[in-house]
Amino acid sequence: MYSLQHSLQFTAESSSDGMVERDFTVGEIPGVLWSPAADPRGRAPLVLMGHGGGNHKKHPAMSGRAQRLVDACGFHVAVIDAPGHGDRPRTAHDEEEIAVMQEAMATGEPVGPIVVRYNAHLAEQAVPEWQATLDALQELPEIGTAGPVGYFGLNMGTAIGVPLVAAEPRITAAVLGQHWPHLLAERARQITVPIEFDLQWDDEHISREHGLALFDAFASKEKSLHVNSGRHKELPRFEADSAVRFFARHLVR
Amino acid sequence: MYSLQHSLQFTAESSSDGMVERDFTVGEIPGVLWSPAADPRGRAPLVLMGHGGGNHKKHPAMSGRAQRLVDACGFHVAVIDAPGHGDRPRTAHDEEEIAVMQEAMATGEPVGPIVVRYNAHLAEQAVPEWQATLDALQELPEIGTAGPVGYFGLNMGTAIGVPLVAAEPRITAAVLGQHWPHLLAERARQITVPIEFDLQWDDEHISREHGLALFDAFASKEKSLHVNSGRHKELPRFEADSAVRFFARHLVR
Repeated sequence: MYSLQHSLQFTAESSSDGMVERDFTVGEIPGVLWSPAADPRGRAPLVLMGHGGGNHKKHPAMSGRAQRLVDACGFHVAVIDAPGHGDRPRTAHDEEEIAVMQEAMATGEPVGPIVVRYNAHLAEQAVPEWQATLDALQELPEIGTAGPVGYFGLNMGTAIGVPLVAAEPRITAAVLGQHWPHLLAERARQITVPIEFDLQWDDEHISREHGLALFDAFASKEKSLHVNSGRHKELPRFEADSAVRFFARHLVR
Repeated sequence: MYSLQHSLQFTAESSSDGMVERDFTVGEIPGVLWSPAADPRGRAPLVLMGHGGGNHKKHPAMSGRAQRLVDACGFHVAVIDAPGHGDRPRTAHDEEEIAVMQEAMATGEPVGPIVVRYNAHLAEQAVPEWQATLDALQELPEIGTAGPVGYFGLNMGTAIGVPLVAAEPRITAAVLGQHWPHLLAERARQITVPIEFDLQWDDEHISREHGLALFDAFASKEKSLHVNSGRHKELPRFEADSAVRFFARHLVR
């Protein structure tokens, strides 16, 4: 739990393709902040992004989505490593759960119940970590406390994102999707901010009924569901562009 | 039935907001062709649009969508009046069905069964009319027979569009939505071109189950469903922009 307040420390800075990449830490949490190279210290809305299970803060899906948000909207984009992911140590419990998941995959057993349970465990730690990170990010002059904040995360990024958005009034719009409703639907019913939600029509892990049930649970007056044909990992690239337009609609004042 | 071939006659031409509007007839069918003012006779892809029930070829929803397609993509866009709509005479049968529909609306009876039956009746006539119109449009040098053709129609535009796209191999991508699966699902199962499909999550006329069943019926390898919160007539404006991007992806070679 992050009950102590930590300020943000930048540890590295580089730049490419019109985007400045600044590595940072908030206490023990490693993160990355991407900003427009033209004006990296300019005040702009912030999008927090949650990475998928087994991935990390600089996975190409993260840097690619950040590039789109920076190019199209000039936003700042922050990602932190989830517990047990990226540059963070795995606990014995992480190793056990990953082994159980890998065994289920190998034998063709349903992975849903294991993923749901493990992601919920990670979210308990990740939500206060995100809140401490947001506190620290808002101390930067280019972000501040007055600007709008969005959240974008699919898969494990949704398992962490749903309780985070439910708990965090500073987040005013979110793109989520590709998760089971178990343990999340109750929190989704507390969420009223605009939502865009992605699911795959031929997902081999998450049934249509389960995907639709989680979308249905959000109490948001404005919510959109984007379903595409294809399996779990075949989410079309154009959905990242759609998410950018969603944040442009909701975070630009 | 349009068994005789008619050539296209232009009857009026005007221009505004960067768009040339040319009224035309193909035999007894009145239509409108919108083109980019910068190059109205330049070769470009064609999008056919079907209007909704009770509306007509120049309804603001039609001219507004045409403006987006012309501005963003430089496409040609054609709409014809459906049988009994716009500048076309109503038959005694049209008048009877409209009266039954209005009575159902007034008494709060479900309108679905009447709309399904009446739209299927109109589609029997409208499909060969569209095919004759497409024949005539393809004789224009700015359209030709080699270019790609899309179809965009919701509500009654889907009741006519589903059998049209199923019957017409020249149409290679379609945006459809907001209709019941009855009498249409069987034709949808013959359709394999890319589809974007819209439905409203809180539609007071079309149940979620019925909307999802029609989407599910398309045999298309590439299909996307866009669901939005809200009632039947509350489809967000940004779905028209999404349709434009869909056609840009699929009709630009």
